[in-house]
Amino acid sequence: MLSSTSTHGLYLQYKEQLQKIADVKYALAVLQWDQETYMPAKGAERKARQMATLSEIAHELFTAPVFKGLLQELSSRDDMEADWKKNVELSWYDFTQQDKLPGEFVRTLSEAVSKSFQSWLQARKENSFAIFEKDLSILLNLKKQEAEYLGYENHPYNAMLNQYERGCTVALLDSIFASLQEPLKDILQKITSRPQVKDDFLRQQFPKQQQWDFGKQVLQQMGFDFEAGRQDISEHPFTTNFSSRDVRLTTRIDENDFSNMTWSCIHEGGHGLYEQGLPDSEYGLPLGEYTSLSIHESQSRLWENNVGRSTNAWEYFFPVVKEKFPAQFANTSLTDFYKGINKVQPSLIRTEADELTYHFHVMIRYELEKKLMDGTLAVKDIPGWWNERYKNLLGLDVPDDKHGCLQDVHWSHGSFGYFPTYSLGSFYAVQFFATAQNKLPGLDTEIRKGNYKPLLDWLRTYIHAHGRRYLSEELCKQITGESLNIQHFITYILEKYGLIYEF
Amino acid sequence: MLSSTSTHGLYLQYKEQLQKIADVKYALAVLQWDQETYMPAKGAERKARQMATLSEIAHELFTAPVFKGLLQELSSRDDMEADWKKNVELSWYDFTQQDKLPGEFVRTLSEAVSKSFQSWLQARKENSFAIFEKDLSILLNLKKQEAEYLGYENHPYNAMLNQYERGCTVALLDSIFASLQEPLKDILQKITSRPQVKDDFLRQQFPKQQQWDFGKQVLQQMGFDFEAGRQDISEHPFTTNFSSRDVRLTTRIDENDFSNMTWSCIHEGGHGLYEQGLPDSEYGLPLGEYTSLSIHESQSRLWENNVGRSTNAWEYFFPVVKEKFPAQFANTSLTDFYKGINKVQPSLIRTEADELTYHFHVMIRYELEKKLMDGTLAVKDIPGWWNERYKNLLGLDVPDDKHGCLQDVHWSHGSFGYFPTYSLGSFYAVQFFATAQNKLPGLDTEIRKGNYKPLLDWLRTYIHAHGRRYLSEELCKQITGESLNIQHFITYILEKYGLIYEF
Repeated sequence: MLSSTSTHGLYLQYKEQLQKIADVKYALAVLQWDQETYMPAKGAERKARQMATLSEIAHELFTAPVFKGLLQELSSRDDMEADWKKNVELSWYDFTQQDKLPGEFVRTLSEAVSKSFQSWLQARKENSFAIFEKDLSILLNLKKQEAEYLGYENHPYNAMLNQYERGCTVALLDSIFASLQEPLKDILQKITSRPQVKDDFLRQQFPKQQQWDFGKQVLQQMGFDFEAGRQDISEHPFTTNFSSRDVRLTTRIDENDFSNMTWSCIHEGGHGLYEQGLPDSEYGLPLGEYTSLSIHESQSRLWENNVGRSTNAWEYFFPVVKEKFPAQFANTSLTDFYKGINKVQPSLIRTEADELTYHFHVMIRYELEKKLMDGTLAVKDIPGWWNERYKNLLGLDVPDDKHGCLQDVHWSHGSFGYFPTYSLGSFYAVQFFATAQNKLPGLDTEIRKGNYKPLLDWLRTYIHAHGRRYLSEELCKQITGESLNIQHFITYILEKYGLIYEF
Repeated sequence: MLSSTSTHGLYLQYKEQLQKIADVKYALAVLQWDQETYMPAKGAERKARQMATLSEIAHELFTAPVFKGLLQELSSRDDMEADWKKNVELSWYDFTQQDKLPGEFVRTLSEAVSKSFQSWLQARKENSFAIFEKDLSILLNLKKQEAEYLGYENHPYNAMLNQYERGCTVALLDSIFASLQEPLKDILQKITSRPQVKDDFLRQQFPKQQQWDFGKQVLQQMGFDFEAGRQDISEHPFTTNFSSRDVRLTTRIDENDFSNMTWSCIHEGGHGLYEQGLPDSEYGLPLGEYTSLSIHESQSRLWENNVGRSTNAWEYFFPVVKEKFPAQFANTSLTDFYKGINKVQPSLIRTEADELTYHFHVMIRYELEKKLMDGTLAVKDIPGWWNERYKNLLGLDVPDDKHGCLQDVHWSHGSFGYFPTYSLGSFYAVQFFATAQNKLPGLDTEIRKGNYKPLLDWLRTYIHAHGRRYLSEELCKQITGESLNIQHFITYILEKYGLIYEF
């Protein structure tokens, strides 16, 4: 029957089915978004099963034999258009991955995730890892089981990494982090030996509404389309989308800290711009999806750090901030401000870390997840191990779990293997932004004027528009002419902080 | 295979399947809620297809042959517990109804609804029925087709009515409205001949935030559980729920009108209390669902009118209001306030109508829908017909479509046959509240103290807890000892306005 249908007809069937699956997945995303923004507490239990059901249905539809047959038949056709071919090839890869997981397992996992997310919220509230421990253990065991289902070489953690970053391995990351750790320690050492910059002006009272308004203004200026997205408040900032025409950012506001919201807002805005830039015509199809998590993160990091912590950007925005908060910044110069927002200081919270020490946070999580996955660390021993590593690597005493191993939402979502993509994203960001500066000679000038159109257009053309067409590495080579090369990052860090700390 | 499974085992299978379907339907409700509260404009198109997909999946699951087999087998068992029997019996009824509609048709309908909702929003914005006309025509044709699928006796509109109010017919409503129209006209005549009450104090400036706070306070006092629900802003107020532990109310606020939000808030609160009172243990099963739309409306109307427009309630709340809005109510006495909030005056907007003229609004819509369904009125002629009826029945000139036939969201949702349940609900409300006053001698005193616990407990016990166990009429008989009797409503109206207008 399939064999007598035209390739175009088959492709339409494939498209229809995949878009139907996308509908279910995006519906699930709406429920997740609601769970973290507006859901009343008592709604959690039923919401968990509703999400599990949607997750199971999406899985069933995707792994249905009829869909498999369609993919196989299409793969065998030789009159496919290039884009069709790419979509089907990627779908086939996804299918083989998904097909390894039994439907019942997917449901169990989804329910465990919802439960453990609730425990994490509770544990954070009561500042006690013990409350989270049991559900996290259950979840970890499921993730280990998932690794077995998915299969891996050398290390079970590779199965986790591959889910977020295709082809990424422990071997690769071990090598990257090994070559990074010493140079970063050296630079940190140099910085510590110099007079420290002041940033206390960032920790004054900044009324919530004004912060919110400023955040929205920044997002607007970056080019985020509020007709095709919005921003809300959540415990942990995140970006999700229900199509490229409905992108949801969330943020949090600390009334006593200017930094907390500002850079998280810019960061999520970077993610959001990427989602809004994905080709809407490929709704539900691989070419309408993001390249990888590291590339996603490259977009948020590029805006947050390479743009958002640059003198160029603040030449425009600092006067805006001064007008919004005249009393708070009365005695602060642009130079002081720039130095302050780039202060390097080992700290406890990853999302508030500077561009340098950030990667120590990631390394700790990476090591910890590896150990959890290969069984050399038990869930109950997480707080102890965590606190010891923060002491050794960053010289810090972790006062409690909220400022320690309970700070991130990821594990409660079952997202093991996610953190390394944050570092990769930062490295890609530096490499991409340097390329943009080369290719667009007037870029810095435009940024100093608050005009982000040239940058956004460039990102749209060279990154966003490609969707999932290339692997991260392929995309990187195509844009920058070489593979990911962390020397760019090390050079960037050295130059930036050399100027700020005068070494 | 089924026949060798124990009845309990079968019942569990049935329950599991129905709860899975409920998960999908509630997920759909989340998307609908989002569509009307937070969705950015450009998200509409994809959202429409996502909702259509969920709607189709729920329909497919419910009408699957395997589920039919399960229902049939269970229906044949003689060792069913009473509650199981009731659930299965109601599911079988639902199944036979749903099974009449082809899956493809359900999807088409859902997509048409989303489209026409968007047109309606646009039409309202531009104050032009013409913008809505095309999509409404498409939708009406689908509803006519639906009536044919569902089947009916005498009038296609009966198929529509039966969807919202099982057993309700044109014959029944014709008779009710016929016996109501003259007495109401008489009372209105009497009122018009008396000196008119003042209500201009309700149309001053009432800042949004203070109105919002007051609304929440009222809801809290009524007993709405904000841990199991929340309130948001939407174009047209509504109540939806994602389980009895997650009930969402919406409201709208007009800064220049105290009434607009206040009674809509109490109204939706009444709906919300009903949803929160449904048995959570019956999640997804008929016994966990509401009785019917008229009974749902009886709950909102009872709170809005019988409580919310009574002297008893305002003896407590008027001082609260005076404290919140001291300048606005400085020269208003409780008596003036009570009279003002019960002012009878033919008006253009249904949701803002007084308790008497409200039913003229419903009668007009009822007549119009009958005509649309039997083809004696074309969609393009709606504005003309509407405006003529408002002139004839209420003596009003309709200035534009926004104040005329574009005011209600219902048709854009494809909800033909819905409006009559509003009148039925008001009549039930009067009959129920009179019974509560009889059975609970201290009720009025408690309400004067702002204590709604006795009333809510009574509603919980005699109405909410029963879910869908009884038909509206059965429930009414059981609670009040007689069928719906609109004499109660006429007497109530006569007494209330006789006192206010002194006739």
